[in-house]
Amino acid sequence: MKIKTERLSIVLASGGLDSAVTTAIAAKEGRVALLHANYGQLTEARELKAFNAIADFYDIKERLTIDIEHLRRIGGSALTDPSIAVPTGDVDSKAVPVTYVPFRNAHFLASAVSWAEVLKADSIYIGAVEADSSGYPDCTREFFLAFQTAINTGTKPETKITIKMPLIDMTKAEIVRLGVELNAPLELTWSCYKDSEVPCGNCDSCLLRLRGFNTAGVRDPITP
Amino acid sequence: MKIKTERLSIVLASGGLDSAVTTAIAAKEGRVALLHANYGQLTEARELKAFNAIADFYDIKERLTIDIEHLRRIGGSALTDPSIAVPTGDVDSKAVPVTYVPFRNAHFLASAVSWAEVLKADSIYIGAVEADSSGYPDCTREFFLAFQTAINTGTKPETKITIKMPLIDMTKAEIVRLGVELNAPLELTWSCYKDSEVPCGNCDSCLLRLRGFNTAGVRDPITP
Repeated sequence: MKIKTERLSIVLASGGLDSAVTTAIAAKEGRVALLHANYGQLTEARELKAFNAIADFYDIKERLTIDIEHLRRIGGSALTDPSIAVPTGDVDSKAVPVTYVPFRNAHFLASAVSWAEVLKADSIYIGAVEADSSGYPDCTREFFLAFQTAINTGTKPETKITIKMPLIDMTKAEIVRLGVELNAPLELTWSCYKDSEVPCGNCDSCLLRLRGFNTAGVRDPITP
Repeated sequence: MKIKTERLSIVLASGGLDSAVTTAIAAKEGRVALLHANYGQLTEARELKAFNAIADFYDIKERLTIDIEHLRRIGGSALTDPSIAVPTGDVDSKAVPVTYVPFRNAHFLASAVSWAEVLKADSIYIGAVEADSSGYPDCTREFFLAFQTAINTGTKPETKITIKMPLIDMTKAEIVRLGVELNAPLELTWSCYKDSEVPCGNCDSCLLRLRGFNTAGVRDPITP
């Protein structure tokens, strides 16, 4: 009799709406390990709390929280440099916004790949969204496909790891509906870039989230 | 009159032979910023000392030392997990050795790209060697070309950063000869994987280095 080894996936989880729904998708497929990154973002502690609450909800024991504190020292983003204001209300601009953290997702993916290679996980899930988003270059399908080739060439010949981005072409409203359908714990998530007690409602991340809930006709459980 | 802005390059520098020669090459081309990574490697403090000595030699003020301590926690390598012995004397094996740190160069490159994007540097130099080396998958031209595409797609449209790997096809003997020709401070470098006082002479890194110096007919200034 052949012993079937259970599939293991790593999910990159910030603790926001998108990563909670992505965790729900991955948890249906098999065993999940959750990876979270602190990188000096303004809401670092609040995001970590949301991450752990989501991990508890899915009873996920394998968690890795990493500190990429050099992203704070490198700066260049409103999320990591307190002297750059977090913009409000310009969510439909075509330019890359100042909340872009330079090449951040490459750091997250590199960490997920190193961990996946040691754990022998075969997938890395990331809840990136391309169209209905802030327009970060490291959130595009094109970037993830390029990074996939870097994984294929830069790891051991026997290592096979696939990046999965199930939300990449979805709208926020579709993500909200999918989250509700999968019973994802949306009440435990945190999306606000600025505040950690009550969501500000004005930053890009709050605006995109609220528009998604409104369009889906669902009440956002964390909105006061 | 057009003002010519001086070119800025970032050099990834461990403090070893290859990165010292790479720093010498980059320093001839223009202004240099040096990036070093601690990642729980056995000789972490000794490498950092060599890195700073090389930076002092070239009078480089812009230095960034980062801590990728999660590579130590992720483990899976003889360099970061003390329970895995550093092998000796098998430098011509075709298999990926246990000193391979999973996907390490992707972490180094991600950090260099983030820093380059903020500093507006146009090049990232890395002293990787493909043929006359330990056979790490993340030290191959193929990997760097794939990562280049990830940079092109994952950074701002106006960002133009090129990975340069001037040693990729050289033998260790050629690197030693080039270092001597460029007056690189080979006496300040450190290559040993195991020891921090006197090089062990037996690990892959010592063996490759010593073979390079011997073939080049140059005395290694750090050999007792």
